Amino acid sequence: MDSSLTPFFDPQGIVVIGASSSPEKLGYGVARNLLKGGYEGAIHLVNPKDGTLFGIPMQRSVAEVPDPVDLAVVIVPAAVAPQTLREVGQRGIHAAILTSSGFRETGPQGAALEEELLGVCRAFDIRLIGPNCIGLLDTHLPLDTTFLAPPPPPSGDIAFLSHSGAFCAAIIDWSRWQGFGFSRLISLGNQADVTETDLLAHIASDPHTRSIVLYLEGLKDGRRFLQEAARVTPRKPIVALKVGRFESGQKAAASHTGALAGAEAAFDAAFEKAGVLRALTVEEAFDWAQALAACRLPRGRRMAVLTNAGGPGVIAADSLEDHGLSLAALGTTTIRALQELLPPAASPNNPVDMLASASPADYANCLRLLLDDPQVDGVLLVLPPPPIYPAEEVADALIPLIRAADKPVLVALMGAHLVQTAARHFERSHIPTFPFPERAAATLARLAERAEFLAKPEAESQPAIQVDAGAAAAILEAAPRGQWLEAEAVDQLMSAYGIPTAPVKLAHSADEAASLAEELGFPLVIKVASPDIPHKSDVGGLVLGVTSPESAAEAFRTVSQRARTARPEAHIQGVHLQRQVSEGQEVILGVVRDPQFGALVMFGSGGVEVEGLKDVAFALAPLTPVEAESLIGRTWAGKKLDGFRNIPPADKAAAVDVLVRLAALAYEQPAITEIEINPLSVLKQGAVAIDVRIKC
Amino acid sequence: MDSSLTPFFDPQGIVVIGASSSPEKLGYGVARNLLKGGYEGAIHLVNPKDGTLFGIPMQRSVAEVPDPVDLAVVIVPAAVAPQTLREVGQRGIHAAILTSSGFRETGPQGAALEEELLGVCRAFDIRLIGPNCIGLLDTHLPLDTTFLAPPPPPSGDIAFLSHSGAFCAAIIDWSRWQGFGFSRLISLGNQADVTETDLLAHIASDPHTRSIVLYLEGLKDGRRFLQEAARVTPRKPIVALKVGRFESGQKAAASHTGALAGAEAAFDAAFEKAGVLRALTVEEAFDWAQALAACRLPRGRRMAVLTNAGGPGVIAADSLEDHGLSLAALGTTTIRALQELLPPAASPNNPVDMLASASPADYANCLRLLLDDPQVDGVLLVLPPPPIYPAEEVADALIPLIRAADKPVLVALMGAHLVQTAARHFERSHIPTFPFPERAAATLARLAERAEFLAKPEAESQPAIQVDAGAAAAILEAAPRGQWLEAEAVDQLMSAYGIPTAPVKLAHSADEAASLAEELGFPLVIKVASPDIPHKSDVGGLVLGVTSPESAAEAFRTVSQRARTARPEAHIQGVHLQRQVSEGQEVILGVVRDPQFGALVMFGSGGVEVEGLKDVAFALAPLTPVEAESLIGRTWAGKKLDGFRNIPPADKAAAVDVLVRLAALAYEQPAITEIEINPLSVLKQGAVAIDVRIKC
Repeated sequence: MDSSLTPFFDPQGIVVIGASSSPEKLGYGVARNLLKGGYEGAIHLVNPKDGTLFGIPMQRSVAEVPDPVDLAVVIVPAAVAPQTLREVGQRGIHAAILTSSGFRETGPQGAALEEELLGVCRAFDIRLIGPNCIGLLDTHLPLDTTFLAPPPPPSGDIAFLSHSGAFCAAIIDWSRWQGFGFSRLISLGNQADVTETDLLAHIASDPHTRSIVLYLEGLKDGRRFLQEAARVTPRKPIVALKVGRFESGQKAAASHTGALAGAEAAFDAAFEKAGVLRALTVEEAFDWAQALAACRLPRGRRMAVLTNAGGPGVIAADSLEDHGLSLAALGTTTIRALQELLPPAASPNNPVDMLASASPADYANCLRLLLDDPQVDGVLLVLPPPPIYPAEEVADALIPLIRAADKPVLVALMGAHLVQTAARHFERSHIPTFPFPERAAATLARLAERAEFLAKPEAESQPAIQVDAGAAAAILEAAPRGQWLEAEAVDQLMSAYGIPTAPVKLAHSADEAASLAEELGFPLVIKVASPDIPHKSDVGGLVLGVTSPESAAEAFRTVSQRARTARPEAHIQGVHLQRQVSEGQEVILGVVRDPQFGALVMFGSGGVEVEGLKDVAFALAPLTPVEAESLIGRTWAGKKLDGFRNIPPADKAAAVDVLVRLAALAYEQPAITEIEINPLSVLKQGAVAIDVRIKC
Repeated sequence: MDSSLTPFFDPQGIVVIGASSSPEKLGYGVARNLLKGGYEGAIHLVNPKDGTLFGIPMQRSVAEVPDPVDLAVVIVPAAVAPQTLREVGQRGIHAAILTSSGFRETGPQGAALEEELLGVCRAFDIRLIGPNCIGLLDTHLPLDTTFLAPPPPPSGDIAFLSHSGAFCAAIIDWSRWQGFGFSRLISLGNQADVTETDLLAHIASDPHTRSIVLYLEGLKDGRRFLQEAARVTPRKPIVALKVGRFESGQKAAASHTGALAGAEAAFDAAFEKAGVLRALTVEEAFDWAQALAACRLPRGRRMAVLTNAGGPGVIAADSLEDHGLSLAALGTTTIRALQELLPPAASPNNPVDMLASASPADYANCLRLLLDDPQVDGVLLVLPPPPIYPAEEVADALIPLIRAADKPVLVALMGAHLVQTAARHFERSHIPTFPFPERAAATLARLAERAEFLAKPEAESQPAIQVDAGAAAAILEAAPRGQWLEAEAVDQLMSAYGIPTAPVKLAHSADEAASLAEELGFPLVIKVASPDIPHKSDVGGLVLGVTSPESAAEAFRTVSQRARTARPEAHIQGVHLQRQVSEGQEVILGVVRDPQFGALVMFGSGGVEVEGLKDVAFALAPLTPVEAESLIGRTWAGKKLDGFRNIPPADKAAAVDVLVRLAALAYEQPAITEIEINPLSVLKQGAVAIDVRIKC
């Protein structure tokens, strides 16, 4: 944990530079929030025109500020910000929040000013949050360095880090009526110095923080984020709302992998690897964060629904299935006990419908039975306004049970006016409620996901695969940049990393093709040999099922001519001959290098239709065998390796091994920018890379 | 429109049978709501113990009730309900709402009582809503026959029909704070007589209703619903929340089509055909209904985002893309005008970010520019709390523009406390608001969908395909039920409906196979002939690429033996020989008969992997060529018919023609329960059904 960041979270004294007595100024708001917010350390105000504010005399300059002071909140015009920070440094303060805007976000001139700022920070060892931000807020210390109009957000256990100040302000306002609160809130602004990644460890170590929400517009250093996040997620859950997805539309790409791997695939893979839950909407992000902070985790995905009417029960059951959870099959003891408790017309099966007559005691008794059932991993409690009893009486009967339970109970409190008091009672007991079953079910699914993540065995150490990294590096050093490697180099790289290939021979003439064919045996595949023609079948540069030397010679002539016609500019070296591997299941493996996260590995249904079917999945290199197997299992191509109808099972372990080796190659050899094995033929025993392309 | 239902919506006088002076009784609630609700017709109360209630003397029996009276609301114990309805009939009242429960929902005894009720209704020509319901509510007439505690739901323009009373009650309560209101609300209960389908035309003709939400737990008559809904949707939008999806899990099925077509595929296809928008969550249903009632429809899918900060703009842009809308490319005139209006650091490109300094006038001016741009079909206005101006001032500046616009403007009002007054102003002007951009974007997409539905040309009359329906009917009459038809009958049916097939010959011996092979020509496919073996490749009962009479004889022996080994119990007639069609694109076409909606047609990627890849789409028969083409276009298999990379385009029109003919066959010949063409080979010119199976 970086101790230079401690003054942001535990300052002994704070100076507000640019404090103002004009209520419409941001410098007024910051001083007000700091003073009224209950901060217990020293508070100093600086304004060149001095005067007093809230009864505190203002200093003319930061130089005059007495000890203790270790954090500066700066609200001054952009042009004088570098000089102000210099004075902050000269006063011996090493942490600053620069609220002001007018920097990188405004164009080249502002960017230059921001560079200057950063120079000052480096010269004086200042850690800087901002510029162009709202500041930070800790509801427990307490500390409020924002200028936002009161009231401050409610105190709670969610930490929120935001790249957008406006979004942060909207969330603060929205949270007021939502039944949850924040431990810490940090608006990061332009991130000239401090980024979300820098702060993760500090936030995670905060005892008041039980879950973390990140609003991300991008990342400065994806690999570092991955490392920091992976350190936090085993202890505290992180939910990320990463926006700007529409900007990463697919570009034209020479490989199928390149075409299919947008930047979002890399973000998804990174979040997956680090155990970060990715939300796609704002409501999702905070629904999940609330429950992750407040609720027990389920031991499995079998959920019970408890309600007092048929319709809401059916909606809940649908939602559970929609989100990959299952309706628990209740134990016979449970069903019998429910039958004894409930009227004959009630449904003692899951979803359990107690009928409209259900009393608060009925709710509690039934919930207890469901929680006691070992077949039940969690409960979705659906509470429309009870027609006979006030909803708050039901809530009061349930609250102690929910709090004591070792399984999650999520509450869908349907209604408004009639359930208002009940909502307040649940809130007071830190039990999140959801307006309808669908959002509760989605959230319950995230709790299950989190439980599964935590239950994963510690990632095994990298498997002891035998590779010749030195040989590979030497080959790559000699390779031209920005080009697809020649077949020989590709073969050598595959060999260095132990990836089996079907031997390939290059024929320069039809006669040579005939004699090499005899040497290799039949049946053969004959492919045009040209680094300029990545997709050979697109130009008819591929002949399958060659069974004699004569047809090999003929195929030589055919594919050469077709390739010359289709791509007159291509350099054609001859044709490649290769034994045709049949009876295997053909899959595609690929690698692209993501600028943020490095080597991104793809697995899926291969062939020419891969881009259309999109039956592919991605993961970040390196891969352990467990990760490789999980990647394979996310596609139909991977599931099919276990056999399907008349398709016999294939050697999945061999595919896992190739995937692990491919990921190691990509991870250890950063000169490689793109690899595609299409197809890898997964046989009854073993797997063979049939066509491999590698780009530097 | 069924005039027997008119008394429910325009009663001259109402009698409450079972009115009670005990406030805890439902009969008290109904009398109170009716009396306090402002209903202007005659109100009569019946209670055998007489007395007065709310100053009105109660009658001892309905026989004593004076004119006018044409609607009875009945709240009596289930056991006396039939007798009570008899008295209602004897009094000459032909419409009744039976609130009481204790009927079909409680078991066999209750079901018998419900049957008795229905007998009374038939004998006395009574139309009945319920039993086991909450009743109905018209906020404009006004009329409130429910027993729900006040206040009633706000008045508005959404009609809501619900199969669940509890859900209805929850929605009434929830709606109070949601900024929208209802025109009519009907809880249908057990639907002993009146169903949602019966009421659709009446609801649609209500001038106060601008959109309709249906909460459906199932349908009694799917085809009739389809017809009634299809009559309504060109005039008024219907949003359906059909639950019980989890109950329609896939069952084991002999055909791929059967395995892939759950009951939900049929509901989806029916809603699609009728122009009903299907919501999957409660919030979606009412978000959409609000906007469909209040907003203009866009002419296309190109949307502009207007906001005052970067983050919210990016969230909005992501959401638009997520929901199949696009970010409009603003015209240069618009961009120039925005640049003139806004500070230099603002973004005049879509998403338009006016910066935090934006005044109410800036909002209005920018919105006007966007609305005037012909490149823009609609606007997503994202309004986080403006830091300088009160949000309500921004709202007031925007409201007249939004109301006058001929394009939709959806408002995401982010926050709570600070945007509360603005929310009320929007609400007063009937402009729906959404808490975050994601829900607004999803709703905007539904507006676009609705516009596209309305813009569709009137469904062409069925194409004049030449079929011999009589011949087909004769073949089917002779066919055994519950079995796959023999190859000859299948061929005849295909021929009767003009679906081209590859001729098939049946060989009973290896010698016959050799001689038939010579007759047909090569290459050939040889398949085991057995109605008991639907998936021939599963048992190795299929040999491709047979090129000589000798190998035909050998294939006869091979497949016969494999089939006998794998399925000793199967009746094996011999083998089928068929010319092998190569170079075509192979797709699957199928039909299953849904119990609700009749023939459901499937199109998609064929072969043995169809169930794994699930690249299939469904539509209800019959199909016009336009519908068939749209069905094809929803799958990758269909898109590929236009050509992809080295896959040449195939004769899509021929595939459309086969699909239309197949749908006609299934629609016109109800004896058929299942058809599967796998594959249909779509050639450069024409298409050939290679393997066809039909079940009766």
